[in-house]
Amino acid sequence: MKKLWGGRFTGSAEEWVDEFGASISFDQELAKQDIEGSVAHATMLAACGIITEAEANEIVQGLKKLAYQAEQGELDYSVKLEDIHLNLEHHLTELIGPTGGKLHTARSRNDQVATDMHLYLKEQVSDIIILITDFQQALIQQAEQNIETILPGYTHLQRAQPISFAHHLMAYFWMLDRDKQRFSESLKRINLSPLGAGALAGTTFPIDRHKTASMLGFAGIYENSLDAVSDRDFILEFLSDSSLLMMHLSRLCEEIILWTSQEFQFIELSDAFTTGSSIMPQKKNPDMAELIRGKTGRVYGSLIGLLTILKGLPLAYNKDMQEDKEGMFDTVKTVRGSLKIITGMVGTMKVRKDKMESSVKNDFSNATELADYLASKGLPFRQAHEIVGKLVLTCIEKGCYLGELPLTVYKDMNSLFEEDIYEVLNPYNAIDRRNSAGGTGFSQVRAQLEKAKNLL
Amino acid sequence: MKKLWGGRFTGSAEEWVDEFGASISFDQELAKQDIEGSVAHATMLAACGIITEAEANEIVQGLKKLAYQAEQGELDYSVKLEDIHLNLEHHLTELIGPTGGKLHTARSRNDQVATDMHLYLKEQVSDIIILITDFQQALIQQAEQNIETILPGYTHLQRAQPISFAHHLMAYFWMLDRDKQRFSESLKRINLSPLGAGALAGTTFPIDRHKTASMLGFAGIYENSLDAVSDRDFILEFLSDSSLLMMHLSRLCEEIILWTSQEFQFIELSDAFTTGSSIMPQKKNPDMAELIRGKTGRVYGSLIGLLTILKGLPLAYNKDMQEDKEGMFDTVKTVRGSLKIITGMVGTMKVRKDKMESSVKNDFSNATELADYLASKGLPFRQAHEIVGKLVLTCIEKGCYLGELPLTVYKDMNSLFEEDIYEVLNPYNAIDRRNSAGGTGFSQVRAQLEKAKNLL
Amino acid sequence: MKKLWGGRFTGSAEEWVDEFGASISFDQELAKQDIEGSVAHATMLAACGIITEAEANEIVQGLKKLAYQAEQGELDYSVKLEDIHLNLEHHLTELIGPTGGKLHTARSRNDQVATDMHLYLKEQVSDIIILITDFQQALIQQAEQNIETILPGYTHLQRAQPISFAHHLMAYFWMLDRDKQRFSESLKRINLSPLGAGALAGTTFPIDRHKTASMLGFAGIYENSLDAVSDRDFILEFLSDSSLLMMHLSRLCEEIILWTSQEFQFIELSDAFTTGSSIMPQKKNPDMAELIRGKTGRVYGSLIGLLTILKGLPLAYNKDMQEDKEGMFDTVKTVRGSLKIITGMVGTMKVRKDKMESSVKNDFSNATELADYLASKGLPFRQAHEIVGKLVLTCIEKGCYLGELPLTVYKDMNSLFEEDIYEVLNPYNAIDRRNSAGGTGFSQVRAQLEKAKNLL
Amino acid sequence: MKKLWGGRFTGSAEEWVDEFGASISFDQELAKQDIEGSVAHATMLAACGIITEAEANEIVQGLKKLAYQAEQGELDYSVKLEDIHLNLEHHLTELIGPTGGKLHTARSRNDQVATDMHLYLKEQVSDIIILITDFQQALIQQAEQNIETILPGYTHLQRAQPISFAHHLMAYFWMLDRDKQRFSESLKRINLSPLGAGALAGTTFPIDRHKTASMLGFAGIYENSLDAVSDRDFILEFLSDSSLLMMHLSRLCEEIILWTSQEFQFIELSDAFTTGSSIMPQKKNPDMAELIRGKTGRVYGSLIGLLTILKGLPLAYNKDMQEDKEGMFDTVKTVRGSLKIITGMVGTMKVRKDKMESSVKNDFSNATELADYLASKGLPFRQAHEIVGKLVLTCIEKGCYLGELPLTVYKDMNSLFEEDIYEVLNPYNAIDRRNSAGGTGFSQVRAQLEKAKNLL
Repeated sequence: MKKLWGGRFTGSAEEWVDEFGASISFDQELAKQDIEGSVAHATMLAACGIITEAEANEIVQGLKKLAYQAEQGELDYSVKLEDIHLNLEHHLTELIGPTGGKLHTARSRNDQVATDMHLYLKEQVSDIIILITDFQQALIQQAEQNIETILPGYTHLQRAQPISFAHHLMAYFWMLDRDKQRFSESLKRINLSPLGAGALAGTTFPIDRHKTASMLGFAGIYENSLDAVSDRDFILEFLSDSSLLMMHLSRLCEEIILWTSQEFQFIELSDAFTTGSSIMPQKKNPDMAELIRGKTGRVYGSLIGLLTILKGLPLAYNKDMQEDKEGMFDTVKTVRGSLKIITGMVGTMKVRKDKMESSVKNDFSNATELADYLASKGLPFRQAHEIVGKLVLTCIEKGCYLGELPLTVYKDMNSLFEEDIYEVLNPYNAIDRRNSAGGTGFSQVRAQLEKAKNLL
Repeated sequence: MKKLWGGRFTGSAEEWVDEFGASISFDQELAKQDIEGSVAHATMLAACGIITEAEANEIVQGLKKLAYQAEQGELDYSVKLEDIHLNLEHHLTELIGPTGGKLHTARSRNDQVATDMHLYLKEQVSDIIILITDFQQALIQQAEQNIETILPGYTHLQRAQPISFAHHLMAYFWMLDRDKQRFSESLKRINLSPLGAGALAGTTFPIDRHKTASMLGFAGIYENSLDAVSDRDFILEFLSDSSLLMMHLSRLCEEIILWTSQEFQFIELSDAFTTGSSIMPQKKNPDMAELIRGKTGRVYGSLIGLLTILKGLPLAYNKDMQEDKEGMFDTVKTVRGSLKIITGMVGTMKVRKDKMESSVKNDFSNATELADYLASKGLPFRQAHEIVGKLVLTCIEKGCYLGELPLTVYKDMNSLFEEDIYEVLNPYNAIDRRNSAGGTGFSQVRAQLEKAKNLL
Repeated sequence: MKKLWGGRFTGSAEEWVDEFGASISFDQELAKQDIEGSVAHATMLAACGIITEAEANEIVQGLKKLAYQAEQGELDYSVKLEDIHLNLEHHLTELIGPTGGKLHTARSRNDQVATDMHLYLKEQVSDIIILITDFQQALIQQAEQNIETILPGYTHLQRAQPISFAHHLMAYFWMLDRDKQRFSESLKRINLSPLGAGALAGTTFPIDRHKTASMLGFAGIYENSLDAVSDRDFILEFLSDSSLLMMHLSRLCEEIILWTSQEFQFIELSDAFTTGSSIMPQKKNPDMAELIRGKTGRVYGSLIGLLTILKGLPLAYNKDMQEDKEGMFDTVKTVRGSLKIITGMVGTMKVRKDKMESSVKNDFSNATELADYLASKGLPFRQAHEIVGKLVLTCIEKGCYLGELPLTVYKDMNSLFEEDIYEVLNPYNAIDRRNSAGGTGFSQVRAQLEKAKNLL
Repeated sequence: MKKLWGGRFTGSAEEWVDEFGASISFDQELAKQDIEGSVAHATMLAACGIITEAEANEIVQGLKKLAYQAEQGELDYSVKLEDIHLNLEHHLTELIGPTGGKLHTARSRNDQVATDMHLYLKEQVSDIIILITDFQQALIQQAEQNIETILPGYTHLQRAQPISFAHHLMAYFWMLDRDKQRFSESLKRINLSPLGAGALAGTTFPIDRHKTASMLGFAGIYENSLDAVSDRDFILEFLSDSSLLMMHLSRLCEEIILWTSQEFQFIELSDAFTTGSSIMPQKKNPDMAELIRGKTGRVYGSLIGLLTILKGLPLAYNKDMQEDKEGMFDTVKTVRGSLKIITGMVGTMKVRKDKMESSVKNDFSNATELADYLASKGLPFRQAHEIVGKLVLTCIEKGCYLGELPLTVYKDMNSLFEEDIYEVLNPYNAIDRRNSAGGTGFSQVRAQLEKAKNLL
């Protein structure tokens, strides 16, 4: 087997150098896109009179056979032929003879590989947007069943104020909404065709870039051929959007891990999403949540990896850019898998309403209510805050909660306190009264759910 | 001086702990935004009947005095008071007495700091978009003067094909256009008000979040109070967009460094943007280009820093999030400075057209022309490529370039060669004929410049 | 004020370019080291006959005055003079006249700045090693008081097996021991003198590099002048060692945050290391632990920042390298502060032995004991594991723990069970019997403490 | 096939969850190490009387068969069985019956996997140290042939001072020496046995950890069982050391890319280490150098990925840690491959001494000589520097170099100039006179080479 670009070379490359330089072990994932791009290119070449219709037909028929074989896993790939482009061209020429060599007219591997990756990512990002929506649905479903499920809201992992569990879950809905916005906006930049940019400078053949772009479903073309072959922004943007998405998932997973601990016991995961221990028979580990949390690291790593690669690279194509693919493929797989798993995990988790409720009843998370109570009666909030701080201290010394202190203690502290404070201290009331827009008040949560459902 | 939240505490914190925990050394940069937010909040509190108009007036007047003092650099800040919020509140109370304590009604530092940062970043991102446009203008100006300036285009830092220098510069225009798109899109998510989300759960006071949002120029409000106080996506998105922008600048700076080397000599930088050596009298170093390239690292670092911080954090606010600010401030400063410098540097650089042109005439970057020549006469491109490869080898052995080989040598290699190859080999012709859309052909470059100017 | 390297320049640099390029705003932190280096250099120049003894004396006296002024904060620094080196030289020349200009003989800023940073980091790393040791002492003290304090050991944040709290704390001792090893080993590479390497190539003056090295307390010199001025490994190694250290601290801080939550209540932090809420009077937030956990991000960021900067830089010095300092200074400050805080926090935390013990008595963390029991009677471990799994399920259905199941239930499951299982299930016994080397058995923990103390 | 830890579970996990959670697709790379560990464990169990000698024999014989089958690629692995540990145990039990189940006595997958990775990395790091030494040999060989090959030394990619090419190459020797130091020191921490730490707390069985450690060639054991199973420092340290190494290689690769450009032409790479273009017949691209430079990104990414994963993880084992492997395997492969390639590339590159020498003769890199000349005659260096700056300017205006200016011009500028300046300006003399320790003076370079050879 002879190297296609070997005409100028006198020496011979050793096998391990070939292996180091070859990308076929991973870029074979682009076989489908590469063939699609070639079909469009050949068709255009004929339409523009650069090759004959008969030649184009021959090429297209050959490519379709290859597409079928690739799908069936029947194509052999060789490291000697470096990459998916040369491998497919080699197979095509074996299949249809020297006409195969005409396919590369007015094209370079530089614009070809960029085209493949745009096609690939367009499809993947569209899929990911759907998977995010699925997960949002699962969140809404759980939220709808838990509007009046109350639990402590936390800041600093300390109980802060009582909230509705639906409200807590819906916080993630809006994070995911932003993720979807970002992925959708990135499509505008993914959905451009670099095909026809040639090696870097365009081509002397009278090609029609708009025709290939439209055949491939692209919304437009790159306006500058150097930019077309050296741009990897669209991959970086994908990795960055994915990093934010994974960060969001990691936060929920952290909470799931906390909630399934014996200390919290707020939820129970379906057996399908937990695993046991090879040594401790009692264990039911939230492995899937931990894995998603952990996999955030590899996505960050791929982002920083590609940022590093591109920093300071002169125009136009440099071989360093071959390193753009594995991180992208890995991130696609990680994000798809994580979304699927978390959707199932959240959708099937059992909410222990009793545990949540009993938690919120045995703590000081209703202390803010008292401070607000005093402030609404005209006391500057800072003074109100200080008074309640002292009351909490009294409780801790006595070993009781705020609702258990007699009114006299309150009145001794400040005469604005009245009998109605016990109503105020009830966590259901505390929640119900937080009716500021976007607050945890039950009617606000219901309104929020309506808005969310309208967005989907 | 007493700690404002100290009511519940019995022990006393040592000074070095205070210093470790305090953010006032850096968040004082948010004084202006913090006061703006407070003015809106106080006004709204009165409008909603939560405080009296008189109280609101007193507060607003006090805040305006503080704003003036802050601008004049006359405010003292104390580490004991932790952050900009408590420092300003302390100053306000000193100024207007206990009414100052009413400002914190229906508000928490959690929604307050988030509001400050949204206000800050909204302004900065808008400025950065303008600075990018300035730089695009500088690129267009240089490009317009260099449409017919020819130089070798490079791939792998090897001369590849001749191109127009305008075409090369315009590649950066489109990168920056994408940067602007991303920054603009991010404004949608920056331009939301978290104010009124309280500590995490909203508030029991009958506030009007839409009113404060509109007073502060926000387009809308966060729909979920937990999300409002725990979201830092908008900062991450800013750091990510800035990382891509800096990556683009670093690529151009790398090229500028190459072009000013004695080996290339393609451009000369204005003295204003170079520095000398303390030891080598002949040196004229492209320091500014190197610094911008280097500063890319710190922006990447701030991105990965904040991604790390947020990974796996449970809802809602955690103190870790205080670490979101310094990286953001530093990135704003870095991006603004880098854009300003590179605009000046590119706008004033002197293009050595003679050096560029003589480079392209003494190399093999016209070899593709010959291969295309044969392919356009019907030879499969792969065979054409191989023939030209052999001709290049012949030249190297003879110590000449392709244009210097006699026609007989060509004809011996392949009979399709005719006298017109010498025309084809001329680099101006080679460029002029690359008229595919977005190619380096002079008319294409002119069309591209028109499109670019219409975008600004 | 005239630029020292301005002889060759005709244009004039604007102020904002100066500011962008200048490092004086941060490298003034190296004033002390810069002067030390200059004193050694001047002394050596005289010893080698390159300048006269009188000149050297004049220079050294001048430098000592500057050192005093710098310490008192009385030196003015100017952005026009770029960096600490030129600022100090300018002050020196003002002080002693043109002899000051002789100090720069046989030296360049390239070797000068490298020398400053080696001196700086040598001191800082030595200090950090002491601070780590302090923290290890605090761990040992707490451990010694908690050998028989029992709590659940966790994997996957699920209770796994009962352990000694001392054992848990001591896990961190060994992590810190590795940190100390790494920092100590790095000193070998920090403790080398680049002084005398000149701009990049050495110097023609008959200097004595070993003399300056020994005056400055360095153990040796760089063997290659290009390497001496372009090496930043020692800073990267510091940032990497610091990243690992911060990662360790972040893990303990995460646990402290968990342990202080209302759900765990395993420890109470001293008021000195917690803060309150501006809105919720009951809050006692583990802010310091959160901050340390959060600050891990900025240290990672500085590491990745410098790795990015250095990637692909050609030899020798490039201006990009000026960006090496701020991340280093920030990391020194972060690591020192974090160590001090965590030492105080762990040293003063109150261990709630009752809460820990009651936790371990109300769970299934003793299930492994039963499996080991059966295995030790000859049953293959895998079968034993399965049997105990079923017993746990039985308990969950009945709402009891393993120690509460009657013997008959056990015997029905497997006849190997005997009356002594109740002994085995007791968590104290469970711990005491884990006497494998390095295990949680009380005698093992005592032995471990002895080893640890011997290491300090 | 039944899950080994399934006794406690009632639901059933779907296949895609299994796939997401399973590590067998990558941890099968540890088959050899896992079996070695098991052989040692079984042997020790018998020696300690925990299982019988007969049972141990049966297990060891079975394991040896598996080792052979694994090496031949004949073992089937199943995703249902999660990881390499359960897969091998399953095969063992199929092979030898229920006795296989006894192997897991007194062991957990937590200490097992840690043991495997210590064994794996110990071998890999030792190999990498050898590969670095090979590369150092190649550098020395090229250096020895190029001691008197002169070229411009660069700072800021501007020609600075003439140097010996051997000196330039040797700068990399010392970087690699530091890499070797770091890898060697890390072995101290890799070479410890976690085996016997159990799930986290040690075991109740009377095992002998020192015995297994010594059978496996470890120098010692982990002193704390929690630390033993939750420590991944040794992998982080490997990734960090590898990042520095790759950074060094990336710098040399950047230089190789520059040197092979048409502008520099300092070296020619062997055809074996370059590739051509599919479209441009004249191209000879330094692909391997670009790839190594690019692959630096993925190693940085793996480092930041694992740092992220471990940040804030509570003790002891968490599933997130399963993510430690792929980055480690990938980095091993990348580092090994890169070292091999660069050794071949540098070892076979052809140095164009003529081009290097002619470069250094046509520039101002000898300007420092003149300044030093004046300084050695007593002029303060700063004044000397300024005078030479003006002379350079004169040359540029006249279009000549310093050696071409007549003596009268020199004398007009300063009367200290004498006829001998032309000697001083000769680049060979300039180099030869830089005889300060570690400088580029030819005798210094020879001494440096001797030291380097003694180190190997």
